[in-house]
Amino acid sequence: MKPIQVALIGLGTVGCGVYQTLHIHKQRLEIQLGAPVELTTVVIENPDKHMKIAEKTTISTDISDILYNPEIDVVFEAINGKEPAFTYLKQCIQAGKHVVTANKEMFAAHGRELKELAQKNEVQIGYDATTAGGIPIIQTISQLFRANQIQQVQAILNGTSNYILTQMRDHQLPFSTALKQAQKWGYAEADPTNDIEGYDAFYKLMILSDLIFDRQPDQKNIRHSGITGITDEAIEKAQQDGKRIKHIASIKYDETGNLTAEIEPIAVPKEHPLYAVEGVDNAIHLKADIVGDITLTGPGAGAFPTASAMVEDLCLILSKQSAPIPVS
Amino acid sequence: MKPIQVALIGLGTVGCGVYQTLHIHKQRLEIQLGAPVELTTVVIENPDKHMKIAEKTTISTDISDILYNPEIDVVFEAINGKEPAFTYLKQCIQAGKHVVTANKEMFAAHGRELKELAQKNEVQIGYDATTAGGIPIIQTISQLFRANQIQQVQAILNGTSNYILTQMRDHQLPFSTALKQAQKWGYAEADPTNDIEGYDAFYKLMILSDLIFDRQPDQKNIRHSGITGITDEAIEKAQQDGKRIKHIASIKYDETGNLTAEIEPIAVPKEHPLYAVEGVDNAIHLKADIVGDITLTGPGAGAFPTASAMVEDLCLILSKQSAPIPVS
Repeated sequence: MKPIQVALIGLGTVGCGVYQTLHIHKQRLEIQLGAPVELTTVVIENPDKHMKIAEKTTISTDISDILYNPEIDVVFEAINGKEPAFTYLKQCIQAGKHVVTANKEMFAAHGRELKELAQKNEVQIGYDATTAGGIPIIQTISQLFRANQIQQVQAILNGTSNYILTQMRDHQLPFSTALKQAQKWGYAEADPTNDIEGYDAFYKLMILSDLIFDRQPDQKNIRHSGITGITDEAIEKAQQDGKRIKHIASIKYDETGNLTAEIEPIAVPKEHPLYAVEGVDNAIHLKADIVGDITLTGPGAGAFPTASAMVEDLCLILSKQSAPIPVS
Repeated sequence: MKPIQVALIGLGTVGCGVYQTLHIHKQRLEIQLGAPVELTTVVIENPDKHMKIAEKTTISTDISDILYNPEIDVVFEAINGKEPAFTYLKQCIQAGKHVVTANKEMFAAHGRELKELAQKNEVQIGYDATTAGGIPIIQTISQLFRANQIQQVQAILNGTSNYILTQMRDHQLPFSTALKQAQKWGYAEADPTNDIEGYDAFYKLMILSDLIFDRQPDQKNIRHSGITGITDEAIEKAQQDGKRIKHIASIKYDETGNLTAEIEPIAVPKEHPLYAVEGVDNAIHLKADIVGDITLTGPGAGAFPTASAMVEDLCLILSKQSAPIPVS
């Protein structure tokens, strides 16, 4: 059987996770997909700074090595920031390749355009890894909530913030100490602004909004804050009231028919579906009009959970190409 | 566009839920599926005992009215017990119809045979409603865990038992009183044996086992008990230890390579992924080898959650018939 040829853009934490997952589970993927998956080309910024890669794989700094290779079927993109990711993905789609991305900042801004471009070019776009790490929330909503209309989402979308809040409560730590611990354990970056100021959760919520409501709310309707203002006293006070402070991203139609979103720390009671979500976990609580309330909980970040989402996207994209023939 | 013609076997709680869901969300389904869904035929045991049905729908006691109607594309089955459900579904599949079932007892015993028969006849079989009510656990595992190998499942699969245990703890009730309350509120049947003795959870666990591990464990490897032996003292004692007693169905490969399953009440600590699952909710915790730990929580029973699972199965079955054309 002709191999499935894939390419990878970026070899940071997530890119390495994808590389290793394709390598470790090579045999299983071949059985699942009916053909071996071969990593043909890796495009990175600095070719001196990469891990050891199998000899058969081309290492390049030039996206043309992917674009002009007609054998490449699917491109994984795992770099940070809007550019050059957006331009690269546009070019890959126009070259007739399926794409799978983990880039939330880029996809929050340009997801709609990329989805339309993919449809026009009759290729598919997988972006489950952009939101809530390994939790298959994007595919759950796209594949398994077709009859249901989702009316409200409440979610913990930033593992770093949830870890810091959990540590502050469990060990009576001030914010600054908990942040340092998160950095020490690799749960927060050297510059933690994106996480602790709520931007990361904002990107993910906008991706969910586009998917569920087919649009994003007006910026002026988004109340938006991170966890930097949370004191150990506030956490202690919440605990005395039987509550926990969680950084919650939510979106719903309000009474006047507007789409409103809020991203902010909230003291939630024991009965709240996100009360028990602890540490670096993420969770998404969906309110849908037929089924009712469904919650998904799982790892919100990390090389392998994110790679899992990307490789599952690959499997789903390829399975759609070989769907059973209609019988009736 | 030619309508999608469907039939329904059974008009109990779940059957009525399907009927109403198809009716209430008619317009949305037409947009989603690209053609109107028409309920052509309903087969029930006693035609005098049914609710008011739209005039265009044929009410019958004879399965032949489904089998020999070539216009019917998909059959929903929502009756109890192995027979005549198994025979009916076999006949429907052999007649070239897709089937969607909510019948856990039948599917735990005959699921494998029906799946093989469906494959042979090139039709699809939806059974998400058999397990964990509205939680889309079957489709999540089949569609979204292709690259991942699931290694262990721990689940609360019986809402009645979970409701009784929650009531006993919250209101310091003996088992018998909590059971009576559950019956009063419609959360337990007049004969509650299936639920409180753990048979219902057993059926669902066997369906999950077939799906995940492609086989069921030896009956001799299944430790199996319900919640009837749980006293209010045991619940009080667990609470003093910071634990909660939950009725947990679990399955995994043990160290010697055997598949083992247990269905029994367990006192779980605060950190356990099922500790916070309360009332009639169900939850499934999956341990998978790439992504790690994922938990799905939601309504484990009820007319609309179960109908939701069946109608979502319909959408997925029909979407596979119109999958995009391969491009590369």
